[in-house]
Amino acid sequence: MKDNDSSVEIAAEAARRFATDALVKVGLPAADASEVAALMIEADLAGASAHGIFRLKQYVHRLKLGAINPHPMIKVTKTAPGTAIVDGDNGMGHIVVARAVETAIEQARQTGVAWVGVHNSNHAGAAGTYATLVAERGMVGIYSAVASANHMGVWGGSEPLLGTNPLAIAIPSEKWPVVLDIATSIVSYGTIKSYRLKGRPLPDNWMIGVEDGSPITDPVHSNEGLLLPFGGYKGAGLALVLGLLAGSLNRAPFGRGVVDFNAHPERVCDTGQFLIALDVARFRPLSEFVRSVATTLEDFRNSARLPGYGAIRLPGDQRHYRRQAQIQNGLLLSSELTEQLDVLANELEIRPLQECIAAIRA
Amino acid sequence: MKDNDSSVEIAAEAARRFATDALVKVGLPAADASEVAALMIEADLAGASAHGIFRLKQYVHRLKLGAINPHPMIKVTKTAPGTAIVDGDNGMGHIVVARAVETAIEQARQTGVAWVGVHNSNHAGAAGTYATLVAERGMVGIYSAVASANHMGVWGGSEPLLGTNPLAIAIPSEKWPVVLDIATSIVSYGTIKSYRLKGRPLPDNWMIGVEDGSPITDPVHSNEGLLLPFGGYKGAGLALVLGLLAGSLNRAPFGRGVVDFNAHPERVCDTGQFLIALDVARFRPLSEFVRSVATTLEDFRNSARLPGYGAIRLPGDQRHYRRQAQIQNGLLLSSELTEQLDVLANELEIRPLQECIAAIRA
Repeated sequence: MKDNDSSVEIAAEAARRFATDALVKVGLPAADASEVAALMIEADLAGASAHGIFRLKQYVHRLKLGAINPHPMIKVTKTAPGTAIVDGDNGMGHIVVARAVETAIEQARQTGVAWVGVHNSNHAGAAGTYATLVAERGMVGIYSAVASANHMGVWGGSEPLLGTNPLAIAIPSEKWPVVLDIATSIVSYGTIKSYRLKGRPLPDNWMIGVEDGSPITDPVHSNEGLLLPFGGYKGAGLALVLGLLAGSLNRAPFGRGVVDFNAHPERVCDTGQFLIALDVARFRPLSEFVRSVATTLEDFRNSARLPGYGAIRLPGDQRHYRRQAQIQNGLLLSSELTEQLDVLANELEIRPLQECIAAIRA
Repeated sequence: MKDNDSSVEIAAEAARRFATDALVKVGLPAADASEVAALMIEADLAGASAHGIFRLKQYVHRLKLGAINPHPMIKVTKTAPGTAIVDGDNGMGHIVVARAVETAIEQARQTGVAWVGVHNSNHAGAAGTYATLVAERGMVGIYSAVASANHMGVWGGSEPLLGTNPLAIAIPSEKWPVVLDIATSIVSYGTIKSYRLKGRPLPDNWMIGVEDGSPITDPVHSNEGLLLPFGGYKGAGLALVLGLLAGSLNRAPFGRGVVDFNAHPERVCDTGQFLIALDVARFRPLSEFVRSVATTLEDFRNSARLPGYGAIRLPGDQRHYRRQAQIQNGLLLSSELTEQLDVLANELEIRPLQECIAAIRA
């Protein structure tokens, strides 16, 4: 373990086992718990730590309160050769969206492209995880969701009516995929939560107060403000159309009807999501395409830089390097988070993280 | 006619006839010229004036130089039930993309969703035009393109390797569709050209100099700088993935190989574009969906506003109101533009705009 901004390095496998144990303890079947835990840890590995094991406590809490169904009967209805609707039966979002991924890939093998809508789902962690699962199968993956709380306003509005609805686009390449994974806010609310946990002040362009639109920099007051969209009205507009496509199109709430999963841990969310899979091979041979992508990106990486930039990082690069480093050295978790997980272990009467680490070393 | 920032109001039908005459004069068949002109004027009506008749001079110039094929044999190859590749044979982008729209709608009726890639195409005007054509048929339309010049850098880069690759998403609603139509730069290069034509200084966050990254505010120097992406690295990342999907996937240039259609009016562009059509009815009945969208948007429009905002405008609202106003009162064209069109009429020996107006009144 290494001291780094009071972080510790934990073997990813230990964190995965810990999360699995916790989810089993609150009622998930072992296979589902294992799948959810793996997808959560995948978010941590990729550097999306605000959507990884950091969320475990919240998921456990919602499962204990009966707000998430630990034994969902997920129903997939193919409504056309290239479209399907997945009814998640209020299961953990991770396994519901994973079913959407499988469905989309299967349909796109036949039709070239598939669009799978999801409803009765829940928060599924990092958007990039699911788009990347598609890219690993030689297809372009596009994923979006109605965020599980409204932390933004519509452009010009002072009410929390819009989520930070994320967009992830993953494209196969050589070595590692291109992965764009962005919240439509400047930062995700998960990042705000991380800052709050660490007691760090917020930059002054992340949040505004609802009353007068002035900046909020103390993370303690983050509940009283709105996150700002990235790129002004363009980001707000993107959040809006993604919400209509992930929510309204799937008969899932979008806008005022969205349940704030932080404020109401006991309420069912009925989260809407969608996933697109596009078969690259219907356009050009996959090997030729990934070569073309890799050549273009390498040219970009080697191009002249603006003053102050040490390297040109493209979408998916940082994700790849973090993943490699954390597979080798362990997940970099803040000590605040590991303390929180110890409390959780105590509450659930499961093996603490340290024992999971020891078990792996044994 | 009304004096408004030295603009004049011209009947849309007169402008359309003028553009048709010009395009016929440089070799387009009458039906194609009429279709291109209608799609150009549609951009003006919607308020995307940097992509409307403002571009006519440039298109005419390229056609005269033989850089665009006035008699393309557009080839549509369906590569799967839900995918197709359109080879535009270097025709005017407007008619090539219009074929992609028809193809996507036809395929999506069968498969629920279709993704049509385009290559050997050209600049097609306003992205929103094509997404909206899909929405008017009860489907979600998504369109993107490799911009016809590289006016942006990759994030941290100082070379012009990235276009302002636009994204348009149109969603059916009651009364008028939701239309998000955004360049991935803060503003489009067309807007910069409009400012240059009018001699107006640029805001200091639109462009930077390649040498030191300092702001460019004099539009005369716009050739020496880079447009900034909207939302920093997120907008740059979005431009990159859209370029891979609209360009690389369709074997069209993206990155260093993109031809600058301003700097090289004599060179063939081989523009790449793509269009997605998604059949709403495969998710829920169209009438129910548009009602749901309209209800959500009306709630947004009526919600509380931040100080300084007179109204909440959602994506597609301004487009709708401008269109209604300009259908009624005429297109609002700058007097610089109408003078430019008079010069063009003289060069081509076609009826000037004033005669087209008179012909309509007769």
